[in-house]
Amino acid sequence: MSSHDTTTMQKIVSLCKRRGFVYQSSEIYGGLRSAYDYGPMGAELKRNLTQDWWRTMVHSREDIVGLEASIIMHPQVWRSSGHLAGFSDPLVDCKVCGERFRADKAPKATVGDDATITLADKGRAKAALERIERTLDVVLERQGKSLRGAKAERSYVCPNCGSPFLSDERQFNLMLRTFLGPVDPIGDLVQSVRQAVEEGCDDDALRLKAEEALTDASVYLRPETAQGMFVQFPNVLQSTSLKVPFGIAQIGRSFRNEVTVEHFIFRSVEFEQMEMEFFVPPGEGPQWLDYWKEQRMHWWRSIGLRQENLRFRKHEPDELAHYSDGCFDVEYRFPWGWDELEGIASRTDYDLKAHSEGSGKKLNYFDPEAEDPETGKKGWRYTPHVIEPAAGATRGLLAVLCDAYDEEPADEDGKGARTVLRLRPHLAPIKAGILPLVKKDGMPEVARRIVEEFKEAGINAKYDAQHSIGKRYARHDEVGTPYCLTVDGQTQEDGMVTIRYRDDRRQERIKVEAAVDVVRQALADCH
Amino acid sequence: MSSHDTTTMQKIVSLCKRRGFVYQSSEIYGGLRSAYDYGPMGAELKRNLTQDWWRTMVHSREDIVGLEASIIMHPQVWRSSGHLAGFSDPLVDCKVCGERFRADKAPKATVGDDATITLADKGRAKAALERIERTLDVVLERQGKSLRGAKAERSYVCPNCGSPFLSDERQFNLMLRTFLGPVDPIGDLVQSVRQAVEEGCDDDALRLKAEEALTDASVYLRPETAQGMFVQFPNVLQSTSLKVPFGIAQIGRSFRNEVTVEHFIFRSVEFEQMEMEFFVPPGEGPQWLDYWKEQRMHWWRSIGLRQENLRFRKHEPDELAHYSDGCFDVEYRFPWGWDELEGIASRTDYDLKAHSEGSGKKLNYFDPEAEDPETGKKGWRYTPHVIEPAAGATRGLLAVLCDAYDEEPADEDGKGARTVLRLRPHLAPIKAGILPLVKKDGMPEVARRIVEEFKEAGINAKYDAQHSIGKRYARHDEVGTPYCLTVDGQTQEDGMVTIRYRDDRRQERIKVEAAVDVVRQALADCH
Repeated sequence: MSSHDTTTMQKIVSLCKRRGFVYQSSEIYGGLRSAYDYGPMGAELKRNLTQDWWRTMVHSREDIVGLEASIIMHPQVWRSSGHLAGFSDPLVDCKVCGERFRADKAPKATVGDDATITLADKGRAKAALERIERTLDVVLERQGKSLRGAKAERSYVCPNCGSPFLSDERQFNLMLRTFLGPVDPIGDLVQSVRQAVEEGCDDDALRLKAEEALTDASVYLRPETAQGMFVQFPNVLQSTSLKVPFGIAQIGRSFRNEVTVEHFIFRSVEFEQMEMEFFVPPGEGPQWLDYWKEQRMHWWRSIGLRQENLRFRKHEPDELAHYSDGCFDVEYRFPWGWDELEGIASRTDYDLKAHSEGSGKKLNYFDPEAEDPETGKKGWRYTPHVIEPAAGATRGLLAVLCDAYDEEPADEDGKGARTVLRLRPHLAPIKAGILPLVKKDGMPEVARRIVEEFKEAGINAKYDAQHSIGKRYARHDEVGTPYCLTVDGQTQEDGMVTIRYRDDRRQERIKVEAAVDVVRQALADCH
Repeated sequence: MSSHDTTTMQKIVSLCKRRGFVYQSSEIYGGLRSAYDYGPMGAELKRNLTQDWWRTMVHSREDIVGLEASIIMHPQVWRSSGHLAGFSDPLVDCKVCGERFRADKAPKATVGDDATITLADKGRAKAALERIERTLDVVLERQGKSLRGAKAERSYVCPNCGSPFLSDERQFNLMLRTFLGPVDPIGDLVQSVRQAVEEGCDDDALRLKAEEALTDASVYLRPETAQGMFVQFPNVLQSTSLKVPFGIAQIGRSFRNEVTVEHFIFRSVEFEQMEMEFFVPPGEGPQWLDYWKEQRMHWWRSIGLRQENLRFRKHEPDELAHYSDGCFDVEYRFPWGWDELEGIASRTDYDLKAHSEGSGKKLNYFDPEAEDPETGKKGWRYTPHVIEPAAGATRGLLAVLCDAYDEEPADEDGKGARTVLRLRPHLAPIKAGILPLVKKDGMPEVARRIVEEFKEAGINAKYDAQHSIGKRYARHDEVGTPYCLTVDGQTQEDGMVTIRYRDDRRQERIKVEAAVDVVRQALADCH
């Protein structure tokens, strides 16, 4: 990331806090690693974004219905899906500085090359030198806070101090575990460990016993919303009149205990997804994958992301999960580079089959009209294949903010510089700011009446009388309010207000009674 | 609960599953204790309900803004708020049958009274008799599967077998615990327990060591959304132009490890809240408590709950939290009796002061216009007091379903019996069902065009051509669709469709081009 792009991100983070889009979670307590709260503007923007997805994916279609599943599901769901066994990152501890990190994200090295270890200061370097000599039986040379003479032992080194002295890789499951019901897993665990200690077990055996004692009592926070759609496939089929092909859509929080969190809200432990599972007859996966690629890219453009900042990335065969026969990412050009917004995957019949085997229940579909390809007779029972467009709502929000963020320089007189958030009007937290020029002469009353008219029309307008008119325009530019209506001294005489357009700062006088229609029309025109 | 009321609940639960409102979570795996998923109709109903709350509380007011906080917050939040120390239930184990239960919810008894113990069968009764004799040194008499001769030792007995032989009460924290980041709490715990065993600690000391080892690494799933508003009070103040009195509102999931889960979705581990914290100057708490009581009761009536099924319950002084100076519950008459929908509490300045002390940050407000009552000078810095209307979204959904559920008996000819969900139209999952009488003669095409017109008007309409027209009407009655429009053979000739009203089954012919307006007007009229 260039320094220019770093600056852009810093400016966006700063605007997010200043204007109430995104705050650090529990900030007064020093914040919680990678957790964020959405402030008054952020909560509205997120609602508008997710509602637009829901409208597009569910309300505007005959063939997709919604679902809202619980975050804590039966633990067997994660055994069947493979998440309990396979959903993990390789973690390594540095023997010099104690950092725990992801092996696959660490700085690359070539075995045998020089590896310089750099500590925070001379004191720590001295202590580390002594420890390395004592415990690892290696002699190094110290220069200030650096230690020289070590050789890389693997294809990576510690991202914190550069040390090549590392523990074995350990798989670290990304699901967050908790315990449900009036159980006492800690009591069971303590008893189990006591017994193992008394039997003389070593540390590894102790740990295994402890894990066993906990596993029976554990439930997990879902790492994705998708499994809700798979396990409720039979209920949805039974309680609706849907016929394959059809889809089930869900918006909701998911949790992954990411070791590496990065880029503001881009990769965080708690995040929001917008996922849809589309069930199709065997053999029709490829054509539906193409269809959903187009649909989804169209949607990302419709919320205002510029075409030149969007692209597909096709997964290479060796990247694909073993069951998948095709996957494309929708990528966005963030300030730090291209990164994933959504994955659109063809998952074959893996999911329904896995849950059918895990639960002993039949998760299939009977089409009385179709010909069974095996028997050649009418009536075909099959396990549907799945196309999954899985979008990040949190990431989508960040992309929208990045794409909308703009700075206009000052004019020749050194005036008029501004920051403006060019949000598509239907996403803007506030559609219209209603501003009395001053807080007297009946202007507040007129402004409040206009606000009421907007509310009745279902358009989110906000009365705003704080500070000078210039400051108010600047504030509304920064939160992306597309239209401001100013009530001034003339309004009560001529029944007109000034409408100011965010994007070009153009101002016009319009009739008060036409205000709602003008804004409604402007909103409709740019949707 | 009378058998009639039990039947009503069973019918509602059954309709919820049959029509796609509520399914048991992970049902194919036998379900997860007290977790529920919202199906296609339930997801829409919940969205409409929570959106109506948001519109009423946030969009239609100048003085309230929204917030969306993370579910996992800094653990210090729960220390300051008192949840870590005080948020627990008294749990007891039965020494006879092993049941673990809440002492305060167990069957009442009088110390010294006869307590008959009843096991599942004779074999278990024999085994229990022997065990009681051996371990408790008490002699009882067996009659079939019952054991007689025991005396109540406390003011309650085991809810499972009636035994008076119980463990001490143990406090069981209701917050769900998990572990965040690349930490290894289990490894730490195992080492800590090993050391304690080797030092010869007893079970209680071991357990304490284990808890200590875990506590440092623990974070918690929020048991309420409210604390998000308190800890973000300074950020919200800084990023908006709000002045006290003002409020912060949030809708979101919360989690409580309830020992007793009951009444379908009423009391469950994972649930959704709609909470608002309203900050007022010291001394104005009582008047704002009255204000919010009225406002909130008005809202519950506006979503269709009948007045005779709603009431306030004032908390008795001994029920109030030590810091609260007044609290009212809004109660609804569920099939099992009156129960809580929302609590409206005056919380004084407890919350902001607790977090100010816990964090060392100032959580106060400066009013430059107000007179400081101590100095008598202009300019007053104070800790705002809080009025909290905290509503249950999940409970609200259940109340709406209960209130809307209706059965109409058959007429004299034994015909016309039906189940109908009399939802307020603005809450109904589908506003208009668009039904071609048969799937031919161009009727599907006309129906689809009408659906498109509704979509464009932002009204959620659904094309539905499955089964006979009578079955379709019945299905839409059961999901509460207020209007059905039927396209028949005449439509293409006269440009008219039949509109059928859910509540009285009245049918009228209306112009196709007027359809959207008729439904829009009908929706507006009943809102």
